[in-house]
Amino acid sequence: MTTGTPAPFCATDYKARMDRAAQSAADAGLAGVLVAPGPDLVWLTGYQVPADTERLTLLVLAAGQEPTLIVPALEAPDAAKATGAGAMTLRDWTDGRDPYEITAPLLRSKGDSGRFGVSDNAWAMHLLGLQRNLPDTSYVSLTEALPMLRGVKDAAELERLAAAGAAADATYEEIKKVPFAGRKEIDISRELADLLGRFGHEQVDFTLVCSGPNGANPHHAPGDRVVQDGDMVVLDFGGLKHGYGSDTSRTVHVGEPTDEERRVHDIVREAQTAACDAVRPGIACQDVDRVARKVITDAGYGEYFIHRTGHGIGVSTHEPPYMVEGEEQPLVPGMCFSVEPGIYLPGRFGVRIEDIVTVTEDGGKRLNSTARDLAIVG
Amino acid sequence: MTTGTPAPFCATDYKARMDRAAQSAADAGLAGVLVAPGPDLVWLTGYQVPADTERLTLLVLAAGQEPTLIVPALEAPDAAKATGAGAMTLRDWTDGRDPYEITAPLLRSKGDSGRFGVSDNAWAMHLLGLQRNLPDTSYVSLTEALPMLRGVKDAAELERLAAAGAAADATYEEIKKVPFAGRKEIDISRELADLLGRFGHEQVDFTLVCSGPNGANPHHAPGDRVVQDGDMVVLDFGGLKHGYGSDTSRTVHVGEPTDEERRVHDIVREAQTAACDAVRPGIACQDVDRVARKVITDAGYGEYFIHRTGHGIGVSTHEPPYMVEGEEQPLVPGMCFSVEPGIYLPGRFGVRIEDIVTVTEDGGKRLNSTARDLAIVG
Repeated sequence: MTTGTPAPFCATDYKARMDRAAQSAADAGLAGVLVAPGPDLVWLTGYQVPADTERLTLLVLAAGQEPTLIVPALEAPDAAKATGAGAMTLRDWTDGRDPYEITAPLLRSKGDSGRFGVSDNAWAMHLLGLQRNLPDTSYVSLTEALPMLRGVKDAAELERLAAAGAAADATYEEIKKVPFAGRKEIDISRELADLLGRFGHEQVDFTLVCSGPNGANPHHAPGDRVVQDGDMVVLDFGGLKHGYGSDTSRTVHVGEPTDEERRVHDIVREAQTAACDAVRPGIACQDVDRVARKVITDAGYGEYFIHRTGHGIGVSTHEPPYMVEGEEQPLVPGMCFSVEPGIYLPGRFGVRIEDIVTVTEDGGKRLNSTARDLAIVG
Repeated sequence: MTTGTPAPFCATDYKARMDRAAQSAADAGLAGVLVAPGPDLVWLTGYQVPADTERLTLLVLAAGQEPTLIVPALEAPDAAKATGAGAMTLRDWTDGRDPYEITAPLLRSKGDSGRFGVSDNAWAMHLLGLQRNLPDTSYVSLTEALPMLRGVKDAAELERLAAAGAAADATYEEIKKVPFAGRKEIDISRELADLLGRFGHEQVDFTLVCSGPNGANPHHAPGDRVVQDGDMVVLDFGGLKHGYGSDTSRTVHVGEPTDEERRVHDIVREAQTAACDAVRPGIACQDVDRVARKVITDAGYGEYFIHRTGHGIGVSTHEPPYMVEGEEQPLVPGMCFSVEPGIYLPGRFGVRIEDIVTVTEDGGKRLNSTARDLAIVG
């Protein structure tokens, strides 16, 4: 598969993101945003830390203040090489110093009793260090305070997400051709990983192969079970290509399915289609979940659909917005998320069908286009 | 290399660890311990989560209370398979519920104003969720509250750490034989990873190859630089074997070193030897750092030793105790940590020598035994 490499993001792209984040925080009544290593930091600066450790790395963003990255001295050379480094000040700290003391003045400059958004995955140890040094400040997770910070993708991001989806689709087309019966889940899982890499993924996040009764566990880790003739097999795989995520699921069957297996698969497919068709600007995230859930519940399998319908995707494979009951966030053009209803029958089998969908001006568009019927594999 | 597989830890091992953690917390005046996915949870229960995500997984330990694991419903089957599952109660929660509301009663039962130790790497979002639901509780990181929770290794753990060290040593002996000059850092790095796997590591955490001027950056990520004749090359590699860590560094030279290169290497070796020789029960962690730093400072290179002397190692490759100025924790038999002084000359080269050392009844014992002289490679 030959695809062009998208033009890399440049320092001005990252500067625009940092400015927008600081402004969004101010609009939301926050004194600033504290960004930890991981998807938030990658998205805002292009900086991928060598390892996310006990040594504090933290980007402080606040309106009217130069973006400042607190970084361990021994990692400062790596940080300085990040594409977004030109748009921020690096402030390094050496082992034996208290990094929270060094960070505190940056937060205090926004008023002693500021409220800050903080990356969901920031280490509790680091948050506690800041709370201790600045007892009058308060904190709120970015998913709660600024859930849409990374939620709406621009054209350059959508291009990457589409490319990642196409690579996942190519992977599915290939894996359908390999033998399933008589082989271990883990071996098929490794083939999925190899295929994702071959189709341009630089990072593989998961390659689930959940056969027979293991399919009833949505997050089953592929293992030594030998796939049998007559098994339903849930395949769920994804990772990052050009820094953006793929995540797709298809359920295949080894040999001829039973009537019940066909019926359950049909119900999930109908639920998935209905939910994808429901996507349009203005409806709430929870409505996508409700549409899928209604189909499955009406068919009598509601208690076996044991997870939300979907999650956002971007520079990470799990992020806001979440398609879940209680999430009233309206859909906005440019959002990208999974639509992945499933039915899980304990001890027997499971079915899940998943596509990434992006919200357009007047509806939704799938970024995965492989057939959603029950494929028969060998 | 043939080594036996150690007997796996069983449920009673994990139960003993959980009981000890709850008791240590009580002794330290804490109401309990909140354990997040990662090394703490693996060590206490054997449970490795499928992925550390926005869905809350949290083990609550408190003296006189049944250990309880809060777990997302869709991951409950995985959690139930963990070896330590028999020693704890699983309480699952489904998407759309507030997991902090479900967790709160477990904490409230210890008194409304309890103080809890929490895993360093717990997500800030989860800590904030608990703080919001239980405004009168307070929290402290485990590194601060119970730094020695995993710090002292028992015989079964020491056996694993020794095996991991031996595998890293075997890796070094092999990598010395491969060609360096004319090849990219990243290619040698991949060979290191393959060798660690071949010698029994199930997880490779890092395989640094820092050549020439890149050696001056302690955490340099191996890249496309082609190693040159005349380069110093810092090698630093490790991961997990049977669940326990290796981490060793050696500096090699391509062809004949200059007098200055030899001198700098000699100074680092002298510092590393002095620090290893200083290890014995009762001295403070910071003393290990001071001994190494004094050798390098006395030789005139103090400003180029830009990191602490070492870190603990166990089920993770970075953990307390830290050999750093300000750390007054006395050494105790069974502790395992790295001793890894270095000199980094910006734009020129770096040298680091690292062994894992365990504290014995009357001194210290290295778990790495390869030669520490400046090896010449081709």
